[in-house]
Amino acid sequence: MKTLIIIAHPESRDSNTQQFLISSVEALDKVDIHYLDENTVNKSEDQKLVLSYERIIFQFPMYWYSAPYQLKKWIDEIFDDSFIKNLKGKELGLVVTMGLSKEDFSAGRSEKFTLSEIFRPFEALANKCQMTYLPIFPVDLFSYLKEEDQKKLLVDYQIYVSNENNHSFKSKETWFLNRLKELSGKNKLNKEQVNHVIESLTNNRDTLDDLLILVQEMRSGDE
Amino acid sequence: MKTLIIIAHPESRDSNTQQFLISSVEALDKVDIHYLDENTVNKSEDQKLVLSYERIIFQFPMYWYSAPYQLKKWIDEIFDDSFIKNLKGKELGLVVTMGLSKEDFSAGRSEKFTLSEIFRPFEALANKCQMTYLPIFPVDLFSYLKEEDQKKLLVDYQIYVSNENNHSFKSKETWFLNRLKELSGKNKLNKEQVNHVIESLTNNRDTLDDLLILVQEMRSGDE
Repeated sequence: MKTLIIIAHPESRDSNTQQFLISSVEALDKVDIHYLDENTVNKSEDQKLVLSYERIIFQFPMYWYSAPYQLKKWIDEIFDDSFIKNLKGKELGLVVTMGLSKEDFSAGRSEKFTLSEIFRPFEALANKCQMTYLPIFPVDLFSYLKEEDQKKLLVDYQIYVSNENNHSFKSKETWFLNRLKELSGKNKLNKEQVNHVIESLTNNRDTLDDLLILVQEMRSGDE
Repeated sequence: MKTLIIIAHPESRDSNTQQFLISSVEALDKVDIHYLDENTVNKSEDQKLVLSYERIIFQFPMYWYSAPYQLKKWIDEIFDDSFIKNLKGKELGLVVTMGLSKEDFSAGRSEKFTLSEIFRPFEALANKCQMTYLPIFPVDLFSYLKEEDQKKLLVDYQIYVSNENNHSFKSKETWFLNRLKELSGKNKLNKEQVNHVIESLTNNRDTLDDLLILVQEMRSGDE
């Protein structure tokens, strides 16, 4: 599965948060980045580009409850009825950076509406294109996070953009294992340490599998 | 009360629907039109322009479940924290033209989401600016309407942009009366005919007032 991250940020080079996110995925083999601020829109080329990926991510800062206009301009210019037929079955994800806490987005809070509601136009677009709409990945107040929490977020982000199945815990684990094996193969990590981590993850996984089977048996007994 | 209609249509001069709508309000004294396709954005001038009106209408064709990017570009460029403080108490309305039936916008239908959901970002923006968000005015499949239905829609549209209180039936009637008096004063209509209509509307209104009082009395008796 290949992922294209489309970045709609008027000044992504000057944004610390964007730079952190981008540098965390640059090493991933099957992830590419396309900047909307630097490329002029070329309808047929951009259409071809999008069609060569299975997962499309729109990554942008929230400006006035939507993406910066550059993303809408790009959509208005390259989307048409024949193009969207070819998007069927692909995935659409949103990575939204914001200067407010995600807790502020709910009924009774200052922003009143949830992020799911605010980004409904993208969900409606995914629906129209018969794409699978992924859960939104909010990045709120990144600069205020402790270093450890930033690192955790970056790992979750790597998983969001490149994990085959976003919804399953088991596949998240598989993602970790593959990633470790990859890095180990490239001699970027100490081999012994890596093998130790892989071994312990694999053991945990076997235990987890056993537990899952047990839970399933208990459930079927209930019915 | 003065109304500013901000038109975000890449080719409004070539759109029959836009031309019908625009020509129906050109004669209204307190309604002005601002085209985003012809004016380059001038931040301080556009801010000043908006602040001199009490009702702001965004009028646009629906493109991919939102406004054309020109509107978002304008918002991204002129909205800032100090500007939005001055919008408090004003009204925000949306006039949305579309090539699909408004019936298609609901759960279980092709477009899956209601117009209220799709335009949530504008409602969130109104909330942020402490503006009153008016009900959306959808103009669907205008060219396919019978002439009589087009005329009815245009009257409803005139009321939407210029009526002091969009929600009250009584104020809708007052709007009609004032409009008739205005036209009659300008000698644009046959005076006797107009006086006849005004008289009958006024009589109906007296009856309506009596009925409203009666209903209120009955209600308070119930409590």
